[in-house]
Amino acid sequence: MRTINVGLIGLGTVGSGVVEILSRHGEQFVSRAGVDLALVRCADRSPERAAALGIEPARFTTEIADVINDPSVDIVVELIGGTGVAREVVLGALKAGKTVVTANKALMATHGQEVMDEAAARGVDILFEASVGGGIPIINPLKHSLVSNEIQAVYGIVNGTTNFMLTRMAEDGLDYDTALAEAQARGFAEADPTADVDGFDAAAKIAILASIAFNSRVTFADVPAEGIRDITPSDIAYARETGYEIKLVAIGKRTAAGIDVRVGPTMIRASHPLATVNGVYNAIYVIGDAVGETMFFGEGAGSLPAASAVVGDIIEAARHIQGDCQGLVGCTCTETLPICDIADLETSYYVRLDAADEPGVLAAIAGVFAEHGVSLASVIQRQADEGGAEIVWITHRAAERDMRAALDRVGALEAVRGIGALLRVEEL
Amino acid sequence: MRTINVGLIGLGTVGSGVVEILSRHGEQFVSRAGVDLALVRCADRSPERAAALGIEPARFTTEIADVINDPSVDIVVELIGGTGVAREVVLGALKAGKTVVTANKALMATHGQEVMDEAAARGVDILFEASVGGGIPIINPLKHSLVSNEIQAVYGIVNGTTNFMLTRMAEDGLDYDTALAEAQARGFAEADPTADVDGFDAAAKIAILASIAFNSRVTFADVPAEGIRDITPSDIAYARETGYEIKLVAIGKRTAAGIDVRVGPTMIRASHPLATVNGVYNAIYVIGDAVGETMFFGEGAGSLPAASAVVGDIIEAARHIQGDCQGLVGCTCTETLPICDIADLETSYYVRLDAADEPGVLAAIAGVFAEHGVSLASVIQRQADEGGAEIVWITHRAAERDMRAALDRVGALEAVRGIGALLRVEEL
Repeated sequence: MRTINVGLIGLGTVGSGVVEILSRHGEQFVSRAGVDLALVRCADRSPERAAALGIEPARFTTEIADVINDPSVDIVVELIGGTGVAREVVLGALKAGKTVVTANKALMATHGQEVMDEAAARGVDILFEASVGGGIPIINPLKHSLVSNEIQAVYGIVNGTTNFMLTRMAEDGLDYDTALAEAQARGFAEADPTADVDGFDAAAKIAILASIAFNSRVTFADVPAEGIRDITPSDIAYARETGYEIKLVAIGKRTAAGIDVRVGPTMIRASHPLATVNGVYNAIYVIGDAVGETMFFGEGAGSLPAASAVVGDIIEAARHIQGDCQGLVGCTCTETLPICDIADLETSYYVRLDAADEPGVLAAIAGVFAEHGVSLASVIQRQADEGGAEIVWITHRAAERDMRAALDRVGALEAVRGIGALLRVEEL
Repeated sequence: MRTINVGLIGLGTVGSGVVEILSRHGEQFVSRAGVDLALVRCADRSPERAAALGIEPARFTTEIADVINDPSVDIVVELIGGTGVAREVVLGALKAGKTVVTANKALMATHGQEVMDEAAARGVDILFEASVGGGIPIINPLKHSLVSNEIQAVYGIVNGTTNFMLTRMAEDGLDYDTALAEAQARGFAEADPTADVDGFDAAAKIAILASIAFNSRVTFADVPAEGIRDITPSDIAYARETGYEIKLVAIGKRTAAGIDVRVGPTMIRASHPLATVNGVYNAIYVIGDAVGETMFFGEGAGSLPAASAVVGDIIEAARHIQGDCQGLVGCTCTETLPICDIADLETSYYVRLDAADEPGVLAAIAGVFAEHGVSLASVIQRQADEGGAEIVWITHRAAERDMRAALDRVGALEAVRGIGALLRVEEL
């Protein structure tokens, strides 16, 4: 059995997990998985970090090029993230004929076509299971076990930070700022939480999942994303009163008009399996025309869970190198489906308005909705502080275009102090 | 691209689903999955069934040998089930150098080693994703994405019939017989429900999962199985009062003493994701040392879900034939771990006794438990009919050996009319 040499770029959270798994189980992989892996080169900015992980100087370098240009390296593992240097690294490794394993969602959601084309041109694998859902197997199942299906929809709770925050808000009544501070204190959220709380992280992940599920390229730029900044404990309480939970859901659907893809805070029925996914856990709900409804649940982040997926990919890639069958399953975007305009979306909505508590306000707002063809299913008005009222509407199905137009006019009404939150209701 | 010829044996529930998927998506698989599949031969006892599925006489035969001996057939799909003819069919196909795809849990749980050895000797694939969990991808994820883990435990709700019955009993208060009759009327249970309600179906499935998870062969005969015949709505009510649900759980655990594997009605915390799996749905909960806790959920039976897995395997096998890389991942039972004796198991128990409602009974029973070292955590006594009492005990952790010995003596007490139910409590 020939040894497969691995070069690792980036010794951060995921990279250190990869080093740990390889050190813990490397010998077992020889018998259990039939691959003999050797971690021959590691690149990072910090020699101290490498030393702390037990990587001796002979295997360490601060120069990424040393890994890519090392002719003994079979598999380059890119764990630096982002779309700048990482893109150069991945393309450089592929051009050097090396297999690539990456956990980089931003890269795959933005330059996925480019790097997969390069891999195909070189006849090597690029694997990226860890880019979505941490350790949860989802990309491999979509490309293999579920390939017999026409996938109809993918719904993901794919951002652990916001799911932790929403769970704390729902179960303990925390407000947004307190929940965010706690997520930051526990290391679940960055100092700048934008990528998580504004839905951008989830948008990159659903772009990757939708591309595979629908055999048609979806990029990060294609995904309209809304985050959870506007959600209050009272929104969650309203939702629960009517049998719903609020989750940040990344959605991809195959429709007659094309791919409906988006991220936003969403009301889903409390009895649905996705509604029970709490804390930092992730889950991806997949509906296929043969398999029916399936769900993949697990830890969506963290050093060892993400490294579990990365090392799973390394082993798979090593098997393919040994078996001389790289590139067996490459890019599966064989079709070119249009991306739906979010303005064309038809769904029902939850909208919370802050208004003056005075006669005629409700009628005025309802009038505007009616003029735009938005029909109201229910309304709750509650007294708020300083003579204000909190008005919560649930609409029947309406076009997003009409809903947005109505809200622009509602927001301009003198008696309306602000539009608190707008959520979509998803009957899945 | 060379056409891969498929021979299908068995046109029953799953077989008809396979025919439907191939007819629905066969052309798409060429572009989307890169394989050109042709269903060239189908064997079944019933020509009428074949005709109803649109299989013209030229492709149909009543002789299984016609499929196995057809030199044009690349992949034989065995969907007749059982361990008799099916074993001959699978071994015969492998010996003829053909790849095999099967949904046969009994075969894989009983003769798994034999058929996988034969596949290895011939250098071909044998794939069996549909043998556990219907359409849920679980075998492929264990052998690929999660291969980087030392798997610590696998918990499965893998029998949809009993899960449907327990759900109806829990949510609508049906008794066992009524729930069974309904399951039969809806086609979820056979006229002879033994395999389902006595846990044998689940035992075969956990044997397969444990073999893969722990890299060590576990067979059907290794799995002590208990079923749900003794469970009453009052057991479920007692469980719920203390925050538990009762599920038929198939369990495999890696322990210092070997593999702890078993099937039985089990109390699990209501807040655990497995406890929320209701109706005919299945779920497999996998704990690995890197990935942490993961769950795979979906439809565990039915024509199209099971066929989804079968066709997924066919496509995978076809890719391997085209890429000339069959047998890349064969048998992974590379170790020989002992199977734990169930008598050595230590857990806590729920036991319901029917006793005479007279002074001293509780003390007598408690005395017997104490003599066997079984310590009691709680007891509830309720009046039953005809001067009897229903006594429910929850024990602290005790050895199964001691618990069984204590129950033998308790059952012989004059005041004890019968042991109603014995369940294990699993703190997962």
